[in-house]
Amino acid sequence: MYTVDLNSDLGESFGNYKIGNDDKVIPLISSANVACGYHASDPVVMGNTLAMAKEAGIRIGAHPGFPDLMGFGRRNLSVSPAEAKAYVLYQLGALDAFCRVTGVKMQHVKPHGALYNMAAEDYALSTAICEAIKEFDSSLIVLALSGGQLAKAAQDMGLRTAMEVFADRAYEEDGTLVNRRKEGAVITDENEAIVRVIRMVKEKKITAITGKDIDIQADSVCVHGDGAKALAFVEKIREAFVKEGIQISSLDEFVK
Amino acid sequence: MYTVDLNSDLGESFGNYKIGNDDKVIPLISSANVACGYHASDPVVMGNTLAMAKEAGIRIGAHPGFPDLMGFGRRNLSVSPAEAKAYVLYQLGALDAFCRVTGVKMQHVKPHGALYNMAAEDYALSTAICEAIKEFDSSLIVLALSGGQLAKAAQDMGLRTAMEVFADRAYEEDGTLVNRRKEGAVITDENEAIVRVIRMVKEKKITAITGKDIDIQADSVCVHGDGAKALAFVEKIREAFVKEGIQISSLDEFVK
Amino acid sequence: MYTVDLNSDLGESFGNYKIGNDDKVIPLISSANVACGYHASDPVVMGNTLAMAKEAGIRIGAHPGFPDLMGFGRRNLSVSPAEAKAYVLYQLGALDAFCRVTGVKMQHVKPHGALYNMAAEDYALSTAICEAIKEFDSSLIVLALSGGQLAKAAQDMGLRTAMEVFADRAYEEDGTLVNRRKEGAVITDENEAIVRVIRMVKEKKITAITGKDIDIQADSVCVHGDGAKALAFVEKIREAFVKEGIQISSLDEFVK
Amino acid sequence: MYTVDLNSDLGESFGNYKIGNDDKVIPLISSANVACGYHASDPVVMGNTLAMAKEAGIRIGAHPGFPDLMGFGRRNLSVSPAEAKAYVLYQLGALDAFCRVTGVKMQHVKPHGALYNMAAEDYALSTAICEAIKEFDSSLIVLALSGGQLAKAAQDMGLRTAMEVFADRAYEEDGTLVNRRKEGAVITDENEAIVRVIRMVKEKKITAITGKDIDIQADSVCVHGDGAKALAFVEKIREAFVKEGIQISSLDEFVK
Repeated sequence: MYTVDLNSDLGESFGNYKIGNDDKVIPLISSANVACGYHASDPVVMGNTLAMAKEAGIRIGAHPGFPDLMGFGRRNLSVSPAEAKAYVLYQLGALDAFCRVTGVKMQHVKPHGALYNMAAEDYALSTAICEAIKEFDSSLIVLALSGGQLAKAAQDMGLRTAMEVFADRAYEEDGTLVNRRKEGAVITDENEAIVRVIRMVKEKKITAITGKDIDIQADSVCVHGDGAKALAFVEKIREAFVKEGIQISSLDEFVK
Repeated sequence: MYTVDLNSDLGESFGNYKIGNDDKVIPLISSANVACGYHASDPVVMGNTLAMAKEAGIRIGAHPGFPDLMGFGRRNLSVSPAEAKAYVLYQLGALDAFCRVTGVKMQHVKPHGALYNMAAEDYALSTAICEAIKEFDSSLIVLALSGGQLAKAAQDMGLRTAMEVFADRAYEEDGTLVNRRKEGAVITDENEAIVRVIRMVKEKKITAITGKDIDIQADSVCVHGDGAKALAFVEKIREAFVKEGIQISSLDEFVK
Repeated sequence: MYTVDLNSDLGESFGNYKIGNDDKVIPLISSANVACGYHASDPVVMGNTLAMAKEAGIRIGAHPGFPDLMGFGRRNLSVSPAEAKAYVLYQLGALDAFCRVTGVKMQHVKPHGALYNMAAEDYALSTAICEAIKEFDSSLIVLALSGGQLAKAAQDMGLRTAMEVFADRAYEEDGTLVNRRKEGAVITDENEAIVRVIRMVKEKKITAITGKDIDIQADSVCVHGDGAKALAFVEKIREAFVKEGIQISSLDEFVK
Repeated sequence: MYTVDLNSDLGESFGNYKIGNDDKVIPLISSANVACGYHASDPVVMGNTLAMAKEAGIRIGAHPGFPDLMGFGRRNLSVSPAEAKAYVLYQLGALDAFCRVTGVKMQHVKPHGALYNMAAEDYALSTAICEAIKEFDSSLIVLALSGGQLAKAAQDMGLRTAMEVFADRAYEEDGTLVNRRKEGAVITDENEAIVRVIRMVKEKKITAITGKDIDIQADSVCVHGDGAKALAFVEKIREAFVKEGIQISSLDEFVK
């Protein structure tokens, strides 16, 4: 029996600005990464998002990002490790307040955007992020790029760690994602993407862009809810998983 | 035996901007109101402030304010009760994360600036603030203007409530503060201010600006640490308290 | 021959957040109020908005608001007149930079949201806003609520002033808008709204909510582009204007 | 006769936060770089700063930075060239509004902090910044690190360019500043620093950290006003310049 988590970003609206299809993507996923007010969201949105997640029975995690609302947290910002730690801690606490009053337990933490990407390549930054998580609640699961530095730092620190993979992205031989600027970085054929993700889950293997097979751990697949096409793709993945005997479960149920 | 708390705002620096004399005021007070990143402070400052407070052994409380850094939270903002509740909850959670990792228990909540002033006169707004506090942690003490609407809402909701008084402000007959724009609103004579605050603590009475004596409850006196003069005044209050047999204790020790 | 301007808010997107149907509303209006980065918009959006406006040949104005992105500038903020003046000046300059490099001349200024509403009732605040406008460029047109304090302050200061009316709002006898919380504040019947706006333009009269006819000056009608229904209503107004011999012109062509 | 400009950052206060000694440094410099509200300052501060600069008769320039108030614009942010161009344009316009109403002509533009450092090493980013400047006002002087990419881009675009040097920093053989993390990066001996800066101005030479003499152009020396020691050092530089026959003039008087 194979098990995998499907995660998606949620609660990214801000004030008068609505974004995403939270109501449509929630029924399709097992874990939601909830924005915490730095790169997206605000306290009213956070309360509403937690209420929706609770009603749907999905698990939620914190999705801390850089304090860059104008760039949606997608631009690298050269923070110090001490700053990164404090920023993550602040956002964990803020989201946890809404978890607490909603009666939901926080399951995991997945850094957002540029913080996720930078952490994947920077062990010192990753250590700072993991210190914040561990000191705040050492039972939290760190959801990190499979094979990246954040996953390594989390494991080194004894934190529960979930390895995230991307159905629509090509991999280098060292297990890192192929840079989006390189040709072939994105898998545009949906069926190929699904075949790849199934193989990652069942065989723990993926063919790198060079053609060589590499090992990969797939605990969670990142999916998107922006637009009808993205939603249809998630449904397609779910159907394929059913056919292949892959059970969709939230991280808490199987990550040690 | 008389007991009273001395409270002051702390941790109001932001990024490269330093404000206040936190190190000098900490030894003089029993409770600190710590800014939470909306009207002042940032995560790095919050971490440093909690560390200082812990070392000094003073009790700390959350000092949530409006999301108006440019105005330092001192300008009225017509938020809805739902927004106020969510903003307070967000800030409580954010500060609590730093309490948790520092090993300090949050003692109280005192709204900052315009939020404090608006709440003192608005029962619906106060109820929203108290809902956030109660749902987050029903053992927290609400530090509110003595006789104001926030104190009333907190008591009506069964929350522990501490009544705050001001040594240097005149009072109307109904127990509200005289508007700063009115003549005589501020008590400029330090000795008179000290005599007044001692009477509030010991006799639970104050002479209103009209000359009439009114009842007042004084659980905590608000003091300031900005500048040498302000600090000297706090020392003077402390000496007078010793002479008068008034013990300075943090709220948690005597507020039911 | 009757002449009137149709104005709408434009360029309110922010970073990753898209809002409005700028491309659809632009062909229907003669003047656009462009957000300046305080309550909405960012520099990239401002550049794109100006480029669209230039291509369409419509006139543009600055739409300065409160520094309250989280509340979209719709919440009253108790700024001082000096702060209001400085905030308006800052936003005028910022937008004007994009006007300059795009080769478009700024036509008018219309305060946004809560700043518009507060100014309509506060002569001192309005004077501060008009000082910023006059000192920046005394040829700018102030677009203000017909009969409100901003219009009065602008006229008193010798600024070109355009009176704005609302097709879908009821009026009090003194010419102010009926508060949205009161019954009958919004005219929900589209045909009635159109009859009312035509009468305002042609007869300079409107029936107040009390039933009494009052005088009103209608230089510009505020329309909205959010949603298909709003856009259809603008088209309906335009058709009615054609039938009634009312010409739609930008403010600069007829405001003295 | 030798001529050089002394420039310093000014107007970096924000809301309730005061920073710097603007009143003390203004009499010592010839050109001030004025913050524009992104990494520091706000509209009220900008108005006050322009008024002070005008009264003192010093020339002012825009000091645009990253939208990172929490980091004071000192952290690298991976903006696109289009974003950089728009951000600079926005800030130029905002500051120019205060120049216009104060009756002061903007003289130059010097990017702040991380934007300055990144531009010095990135020709594409520098080109974007220069496009904003040129399209806004092609008579503006670009104040850039001597020998860096911003200076190169500005010259390639035909903009007036002033080369900035640092008295207290060591240089690599290629004319770039020695990274602050490297030993010897900062010249701590004040007399040595003054000797070095005089040689840069008079001989257009500096000894690199390797010991080799390299060519350098010194149009402006960056000085700081934070603290008594910094101010004393500026006075010392001024005295040395007088003795050496070096005249202090604002950039506009000698940069072609």
